[in-house]
Amino acid sequence: MSRPRIGITLGDPGGIGPEIVAKALAASAPLPDSDYVLFGDEEGFRNEASRLGLTLAARSVSFQAPGEARPSGRRGAPDKDNGAASFRAFEAAVADARAGVVQAIVTAPVSKKSWDLAGVPWRGHTDYLAAFYPDAIMTFWSESLTVALLSHHLPLREALARVTKGGLLRFLTSLRDGLASVSPGRHEFLVAGLNPHAGEEGLLGREESEEIGPAIREARESGLPVAGPFPPDVVFRSALGHPEKIVVALYHDQGLIPFKLAAFETGVNVTLGMPFVRTSPDHGTAFDIAGENRADPRSMIEAIRLAGRLALRPL
Amino acid sequence: MSRPRIGITLGDPGGIGPEIVAKALAASAPLPDSDYVLFGDEEGFRNEASRLGLTLAARSVSFQAPGEARPSGRRGAPDKDNGAASFRAFEAAVADARAGVVQAIVTAPVSKKSWDLAGVPWRGHTDYLAAFYPDAIMTFWSESLTVALLSHHLPLREALARVTKGGLLRFLTSLRDGLASVSPGRHEFLVAGLNPHAGEEGLLGREESEEIGPAIREARESGLPVAGPFPPDVVFRSALGHPEKIVVALYHDQGLIPFKLAAFETGVNVTLGMPFVRTSPDHGTAFDIAGENRADPRSMIEAIRLAGRLALRPL
Repeated sequence: MSRPRIGITLGDPGGIGPEIVAKALAASAPLPDSDYVLFGDEEGFRNEASRLGLTLAARSVSFQAPGEARPSGRRGAPDKDNGAASFRAFEAAVADARAGVVQAIVTAPVSKKSWDLAGVPWRGHTDYLAAFYPDAIMTFWSESLTVALLSHHLPLREALARVTKGGLLRFLTSLRDGLASVSPGRHEFLVAGLNPHAGEEGLLGREESEEIGPAIREARESGLPVAGPFPPDVVFRSALGHPEKIVVALYHDQGLIPFKLAAFETGVNVTLGMPFVRTSPDHGTAFDIAGENRADPRSMIEAIRLAGRLALRPL
Repeated sequence: MSRPRIGITLGDPGGIGPEIVAKALAASAPLPDSDYVLFGDEEGFRNEASRLGLTLAARSVSFQAPGEARPSGRRGAPDKDNGAASFRAFEAAVADARAGVVQAIVTAPVSKKSWDLAGVPWRGHTDYLAAFYPDAIMTFWSESLTVALLSHHLPLREALARVTKGGLLRFLTSLRDGLASVSPGRHEFLVAGLNPHAGEEGLLGREESEEIGPAIREARESGLPVAGPFPPDVVFRSALGHPEKIVVALYHDQGLIPFKLAAFETGVNVTLGMPFVRTSPDHGTAFDIAGENRADPRSMIEAIRLAGRLALRPL
């Protein structure tokens, strides 16, 4: 396969999704030589591109609009109709990816609150994908730092309960397998601790000695390239500048606070462990600047480029 | 007072403390014009300085060695005798600060494990200070980012239990009062959420709506310059480059992961809410490089400079 078909969802119509997709496809950035299939409201998207003075001339772009869910036209806040529309578009993109019609999907940001208002029971893209692929893993890629999340959209209290020896061991195995299919280079997994100073030899918490440490030892014995647990406030600094070292974060903010600081506006979210590639920018709907032509498309451009690169590999 | 007396503790004798203090006092960095009182083992310190080829010629330096606790001479690991020695030195420095003999203390890193081996019941400097000053607050200062910690050396599960409306409200008041005495400029407090996306309107956790949000509203009504709760993975990026904006982190690693990434090797820990100034470098004992002449004194130098600057203000 030399020319992949990449699906792109437009995200929540009330956020910056349509704007950054239009800017990315119109930009001079060297995007992969692909056929692009856009999932979402074609008319709204063309109006947005025209309003921004952008043309998509140079790209091969087609549309796939799930007709039954029309966006509300409302912007800047969570909205029931926008939630239904962005969910239907994403659902259609995933169906096409599962069927092999597109080899990768790139997803613009949706609002979990809009989905909730529309009665969608999933807490976002990754939560939906996990229903099909329970071992799907959320990872974040940039030139300076790579992070994998043991859990993602959970209240912190619930995330803590997921830090078990068995869960971490399964996660590390899935991470190795998921990486092997898209990025066969040499990787090293650095597992962060859960507690301050990684528990400081038991003085500041027991998860490191009872769950995390034993999982790492067992994973190493089965040949996985893993080390830790490391003090959380040191490990990200150590890994900075070494994207081949993947920091395993034990909860959402442990990984995303440093990632967004290190890779502001150029980070890409990559879901591993599925038979197709899925990437997305690492930011949200940015309702506060929707419609103001202020949204930065760099993260979306990087997401499309990475999707193209990974989709060319045999899965 | 124009020429303050600054106490400096040498930290765990098995770590890099004596090395960075010797390098800082010998360095060409413009330290404050102060009398320096070093708390710790004078003979060991002079041997260390001589081994490193350093002289303290230009400084006014005297020693204060608590005689009853001798370090073991062992390096590179937690050690009972070193723990007792570093605790006694710190205890003496605090006593002199409380008595007004020194106006500020700068503390080189100690090992909580060494203290534990020596039977010291406190989990570090700040834990000990909190016994005298229950409203003492751990803050981290740099040119790019300032962070205050609601709690510090606690297992994460215990730290979560401290996130209450009443506790946060008291903390914000203490922070305002503590800052007023040392840094009277204009400050703004940005409170991070506890859960991913600050709870995403209740979908990812309830602490923001039940505890954090109400505490912030009440603090604002009483005139405190506070806003939030903000998504944790966004607020540190927003505050970067604005050290007058103080990010209130709700647990140790939420604040220290981004701080150490943004202010590597130049960050300073400042304890507020006491009748004297206390600063320290933001790193640990670094047992792994002790005795190798590889320790970077920049954070210690900044800690001494900041102590001098803050000590000149009326408390």
